[in-house]
Amino acid sequence: MKIFRVDLEGREQYLLALEGRFQRLEGDPFGQFAPGEDLGPGESAASLPEGARLLAPVVPTKIVAIGLNYRDHAAEQRKPLPPEPMVFIKPPSAVIAAGETIRLPRGVGRVDYEAELAVVIRRRATKVPRERALDYVLGYTCANDVTARDLQNRGVQYSHCKGYDTFAPLGPCIATGLDPADLAVQGRLNGELRQDSSTRQLIFPVDRLIEYISAIMTLEPGDVISTGTPAGIGPLSPGDVVTVTVEGVGDLTNVVE
Amino acid sequence: MKIFRVDLEGREQYLLALEGRFQRLEGDPFGQFAPGEDLGPGESAASLPEGARLLAPVVPTKIVAIGLNYRDHAAEQRKPLPPEPMVFIKPPSAVIAAGETIRLPRGVGRVDYEAELAVVIRRRATKVPRERALDYVLGYTCANDVTARDLQNRGVQYSHCKGYDTFAPLGPCIATGLDPADLAVQGRLNGELRQDSSTRQLIFPVDRLIEYISAIMTLEPGDVISTGTPAGIGPLSPGDVVTVTVEGVGDLTNVVE
Repeated sequence: MKIFRVDLEGREQYLLALEGRFQRLEGDPFGQFAPGEDLGPGESAASLPEGARLLAPVVPTKIVAIGLNYRDHAAEQRKPLPPEPMVFIKPPSAVIAAGETIRLPRGVGRVDYEAELAVVIRRRATKVPRERALDYVLGYTCANDVTARDLQNRGVQYSHCKGYDTFAPLGPCIATGLDPADLAVQGRLNGELRQDSSTRQLIFPVDRLIEYISAIMTLEPGDVISTGTPAGIGPLSPGDVVTVTVEGVGDLTNVVE
Repeated sequence: MKIFRVDLEGREQYLLALEGRFQRLEGDPFGQFAPGEDLGPGESAASLPEGARLLAPVVPTKIVAIGLNYRDHAAEQRKPLPPEPMVFIKPPSAVIAAGETIRLPRGVGRVDYEAELAVVIRRRATKVPRERALDYVLGYTCANDVTARDLQNRGVQYSHCKGYDTFAPLGPCIATGLDPADLAVQGRLNGELRQDSSTRQLIFPVDRLIEYISAIMTLEPGDVISTGTPAGIGPLSPGDVVTVTVEGVGDLTNVVE
């Protein structure tokens, strides 16, 4: 099942895509919900009901993101595997939806794409043991952890160099029922495959991340964990089209300006 | 004027303290508001109307905090003055009110208090020039930028070592109409004065911080800027009582467990 957040008939609402048809979500996606009114055939962001404008799938109170969490990316960066997850925060003000524009700030130098699997939290999580961690997950989406690389290399905090407005594309939907142990994660630049890995390469898998982060800070419903990027990162230029694809979720495509 | 956020009669609401009396705030503290029903004499957190429980004055979408922003603290740390503000984010999940308990996490080593002036944003701020920056301020409060110092020294991101639950005491109120150019900022540990400085010592003053941060990330109504701590920081132990005082705002007191 996929959950889309849209602007439709003048208000924000959630739609379910189920067996090739869209339905209104009745209830609370972070509580009890069920399929409601049928809105016709469709199952992806490209076939939303007429008049629906896609929004980012959640408005998180925080995005907790992880640095250097793929074995292939650590090798590419010639860095040793970290002994513990490297945790930082991207602000909600950076979130944009699929189809919206990533804006390169003036004077910051190189800005990179980073394709990532993102976890959407379903219920408040404090000090959750690994064995129960996946019970706190609503589903998964795609994230692009856009990064001002020159600033990062100069040593500014990650919340700064990864926190600019439009630097957190999320979407297109929340896919439920996926097993996060072996999902393909890909990044494409102008249609060319640049990142092509699997969550099998994660140093710290999703359940361990939820355990680790929730021992530091309480995760709220709708909060997002962006799990880190595999090898193949690279710079963005104005006019580029960048796509993050997570197996079972779909494509998160944004243009760059 | 001071604005207190309280739990009263089973719901969250704002009160105004004005000329020695409390009134219900009618309207939106981040929009248009006016004094409403009179609730009797009082002007501080110690004299709230009967049944009112003090809450943190805002629920921010983010706390943008600044490292190393006092000349006296930079000298104490034997660090050169930074050429630009050092920006990081503390998550909303870390916020507690005056009177609530700072909890020391297990296994993180030394945890320090840091007394700070905090700015509460009134309206959405994107790329605001310095000359107009103070128009975006609702008022000021006290913040304690509680920090797991050993983790900080090990090089983890500030959002982690400063992002634990209960590590962002805020309060007791939002004081409006203050000039942020020369406010006393003090920290007391178990009644003993440990930090005693003034915002005159700020390397980057409030208007410059708003200009700098809003060029990176949009500030939303209720967002908080914690402006950095002066000299005199030190470790917390269970049973300690720590108080941050900002001139014209009041005392933010928390016990440690």
